[in-house]
Amino acid sequence: MKILMIGANGTIGKAAYGELSKRKEIISVDRTSGELHANLADSKSLDALFAQITPVDAIVCAAGNVTFAPLAEMDEAKFQLGLQDKLMGQVNLVQKGISKLKDSGSITLIGGILAGQPIRQGASASMVNAALEGFIRAAAIELPRGIRINLISPTVLEEALDSYEPYFRGFDAVPASRVAKAFSKLNRHFDLSTSH
Amino acid sequence: MKILMIGANGTIGKAAYGELSKRKEIISVDRTSGELHANLADSKSLDALFAQITPVDAIVCAAGNVTFAPLAEMDEAKFQLGLQDKLMGQVNLVQKGISKLKDSGSITLIGGILAGQPIRQGASASMVNAALEGFIRAAAIELPRGIRINLISPTVLEEALDSYEPYFRGFDAVPASRVAKAFSKLNRHFDLSTSH
Repeated sequence: MKILMIGANGTIGKAAYGELSKRKEIISVDRTSGELHANLADSKSLDALFAQITPVDAIVCAAGNVTFAPLAEMDEAKFQLGLQDKLMGQVNLVQKGISKLKDSGSITLIGGILAGQPIRQGASASMVNAALEGFIRAAAIELPRGIRINLISPTVLEEALDSYEPYFRGFDAVPASRVAKAFSKLNRHFDLSTSH
Repeated sequence: MKILMIGANGTIGKAAYGELSKRKEIISVDRTSGELHANLADSKSLDALFAQITPVDAIVCAAGNVTFAPLAEMDEAKFQLGLQDKLMGQVNLVQKGISKLKDSGSITLIGGILAGQPIRQGASASMVNAALEGFIRAAAIELPRGIRINLISPTVLEEALDSYEPYFRGFDAVPASRVAKAFSKLNRHFDLSTSH
């Protein structure tokens, strides 16, 4: 079983790579590292990526940027980063990736807890993560050939608490290794039907 | 009490105007009709609108466009309409409108049921409506001077069933007049503190 992983070099991506690579073959993609390079926010870069790929069993994404800033300082350009990168980057990944997925393939995107639980300075993250939840629910009922789509919405990472704790006061943090397990869980039906 | 209403000439807008104008003074805004003209999707047009406005007690929006199309036919440009118009149009309305709202003023935006209940051809609507839910939850905790923000997420309108019923099979439809009452409900605290 072969998985295309975008954002393999981030905190979550490294942990997801560690978890999935125990049992699967991973094609790792990141902006400047990984086997292949692509920039999620650049639609042409995704076209170039998929031109190099033969069909895979799953596409997983652990990449996506948004701007954190006080609401009063958020302007259109600051909202645009999250819309272009974490939101439409992942939507484009789905739209361009479908033809490179085998029948009954799986897509796993990354959102976040702020979709439903806001923090100060998190308006863009809440918007984008909630948008992803809406999108995957709708995409799920139109995907062809038994292809599934899911979203992982992690809470704050233990690894990020040094810088983020004051913003996430009261949230339970989890290690990236626990978020990584969700990537396995969402691909688990393959484990029952193959020797992997 | 004075309310600035964007999208006063749509199906929901007309009903909301009928409901709110029983007790409030309304400044109606629409693209080509209404007392004042503005295009929600055009940030400069909103700047021009607010340059003409003295402070109001509430801003309500009943406008916003998205593209309905099969997922396989949705491209970046088609998603962009919803992101630029219904989503960022309303976000810009909030950001630009705050300084024109009196203390304890109220903002009411319009989303929709597809945020949580998908239909085929509704990926952009689900994305945008969910994004609005995420945004208003986050904005609510950062708005200054006691300003409130709420979102109305209506189901399909009885008035729209002629064209939309096959897409919304199984949904309860409501008349626009019932959606209109939500605009009054979300502004109701003013009714207790003023003679209106």
